[in-house]
Amino acid sequence: MRPKRRTVYDEKKVLKILERFGMKIARQVLEGRPPKIKIPVRTLSNTVWDDKYKILRLGPRKSVREFFDIGESKRFMQTVLMTSIIIKARREGDYPTIRDLYYTGKHTIVYRDEYGRKRTEETWNDQKESNSVIQDIEVATGLLREQMGIMHDAKGKIVGNIIIRSKGYNIDLSRMGSGAYAVPPNVDKLEIRRVDAKYVLVIEKDAIFERLNEEEFWKRENCILITGKGQPDRSTRRMVRRLWEEFDLPVYVLTDADPYGFWIYMVYRSGSISLSYESERLAAPEARFLGITVTDIYKYKIPKNYIIKATDRDIKRAKEILRYPWVKASKDWTRELKLFLEKKEKVEIEALSGYGFKFLSKTYIPEKIKNNEWII
Amino acid sequence: MRPKRRTVYDEKKVLKILERFGMKIARQVLEGRPPKIKIPVRTLSNTVWDDKYKILRLGPRKSVREFFDIGESKRFMQTVLMTSIIIKARREGDYPTIRDLYYTGKHTIVYRDEYGRKRTEETWNDQKESNSVIQDIEVATGLLREQMGIMHDAKGKIVGNIIIRSKGYNIDLSRMGSGAYAVPPNVDKLEIRRVDAKYVLVIEKDAIFERLNEEEFWKRENCILITGKGQPDRSTRRMVRRLWEEFDLPVYVLTDADPYGFWIYMVYRSGSISLSYESERLAAPEARFLGITVTDIYKYKIPKNYIIKATDRDIKRAKEILRYPWVKASKDWTRELKLFLEKKEKVEIEALSGYGFKFLSKTYIPEKIKNNEWII
Repeated sequence: MRPKRRTVYDEKKVLKILERFGMKIARQVLEGRPPKIKIPVRTLSNTVWDDKYKILRLGPRKSVREFFDIGESKRFMQTVLMTSIIIKARREGDYPTIRDLYYTGKHTIVYRDEYGRKRTEETWNDQKESNSVIQDIEVATGLLREQMGIMHDAKGKIVGNIIIRSKGYNIDLSRMGSGAYAVPPNVDKLEIRRVDAKYVLVIEKDAIFERLNEEEFWKRENCILITGKGQPDRSTRRMVRRLWEEFDLPVYVLTDADPYGFWIYMVYRSGSISLSYESERLAAPEARFLGITVTDIYKYKIPKNYIIKATDRDIKRAKEILRYPWVKASKDWTRELKLFLEKKEKVEIEALSGYGFKFLSKTYIPEKIKNNEWII
Repeated sequence: MRPKRRTVYDEKKVLKILERFGMKIARQVLEGRPPKIKIPVRTLSNTVWDDKYKILRLGPRKSVREFFDIGESKRFMQTVLMTSIIIKARREGDYPTIRDLYYTGKHTIVYRDEYGRKRTEETWNDQKESNSVIQDIEVATGLLREQMGIMHDAKGKIVGNIIIRSKGYNIDLSRMGSGAYAVPPNVDKLEIRRVDAKYVLVIEKDAIFERLNEEEFWKRENCILITGKGQPDRSTRRMVRRLWEEFDLPVYVLTDADPYGFWIYMVYRSGSISLSYESERLAAPEARFLGITVTDIYKYKIPKNYIIKATDRDIKRAKEILRYPWVKASKDWTRELKLFLEKKEKVEIEALSGYGFKFLSKTYIPEKIKNNEWII
């Protein structure tokens, strides 16, 4: 199967977008106008649930950051400083990490205040501050930080009948043996050339991924296996999104039967509140939750001594999830979470091993998919 | 370069070793003798520093676990139970995770005590207990759990001019593009066929690995890049060990200049106390610490506002490391740790970005290697 859509920018285009953003500010200065930057507001109050596309996204509110406003001038300076560092890195073909950017921009500004006293000010005090500036640049330019060539930890692993192209090589992800392909931070630098698979199976736990890979589950079932090792990072989510978007592949998510697992599914599907501005490029809105559901605990008669008592944190999280707009609108999820809150019990994927090591891969997953026993 | 030594078992041999271990117990029972198992003691008091091979290893003490000793019969039963589950998995080609093994073996034994009262006993209560039994089987059989086909999370990533063979595929780790090869849990199932590299560079931080990979440092410097993402897991350590052992490659380790980084280096080099019984197969005794050293902080004049104050935990860890036998024997390490305890300051690798993004990869690493500025 060849991609139905392309969603990738090349490096030149990225540099051009960044330069245009910088030029806009420079032009204001050159023309003697007070410089200002318009940046979409990234707060919870400006995060909205888009019911049509089934994702969290940023609302319409924008803030104007004015250089001549004393309360905003520092943030204005930080934004310009960070933009200039990123543009320089792009021009010189460097791939700094978010931590590199923090250090590179960090210095002490010495100045005199209105009374002539010598004062000092740090450009930023911690990485939280510089990361937040990077996020501002993301929403202002519409570029992901990955597209800007900014590096960070990447957790994802993937295998299956899929051929990608990167740096001039065709990489066949069905020929990784016992290992896997480690997803790079910037998934958009990969071209997904061919896919021969019926679906994508997203696995919460790395150890389960390793096990299914070792027994070549993906070959037998003709699917793509991917894991983001717990809470997924941006690049794993981007990879899942692209497979869904460019190849129209159904996405199934397999996690433990507990609110943390459910929440991981929600992040793959709809985005997270803290990164709602990225949902459009990171979420896979039609992702299906395969299991383990709360109902499964009783349907599959999981033995009593495999069942774990829910913690207060689990219960709190379940109540939170129950308030999400798309959960309220889903009969299945409402039933699952209410059952969880009633029983206060959870199980791990591995509890299915009670039926033998092959039960998960030979019975549970294939039958659930065949019989459409997923929820959304 | 082709391997100078081979250090890998095939699956048949592994099964044979496990069966022999089980048969020994069965024979005792069949011959009417009281069954017992001899298992090397895995405690700190039986961990010794092997000065010749520069690794931590288990001492000579063995414990005898007797079925007819009431204090040991449960542990005896657990060992036999776990062995039988692992043998079954090997015979049927299953690859359970350590958590799967815990669940598969977990059940309630109902029995009557000496007064005829009904009693129950869990085979094991938590995974700590079942993991400990797996470790016993490792030391008793001399097999790594990875060799027994037991799966777990695997953190390692590797790239470079190296060709491995796995499941019938030749995998060229110089053709991974922006991504990398994710090291599988059982490194011994890989055959390392060819290596064309001058050295192995082990990088503590994944984000730095990604950055050096994106700029193709390994191609320019003709080396192998590998990361275990912080504290390395067993499979990353095994991979480093094999490259060192089978190809006589020098191993350099790059971490932050702080006691946690130094400790990570020590684990790669000499093993960890909790896994001392595995050092012989996991440690790379001649691994060299490239940096960042405490001396570097002052030699490279790292700016004051890039320097981080050491925490109490850092200081405690530094004092602990200073007591390690091989550290005591190393002038360089003694100097570094004493300087750290005097200055109480640390820096991260990324602090070198103050000299530009290319400083680390174009100056710091190549010059340190060229001028033999590493410590051991």
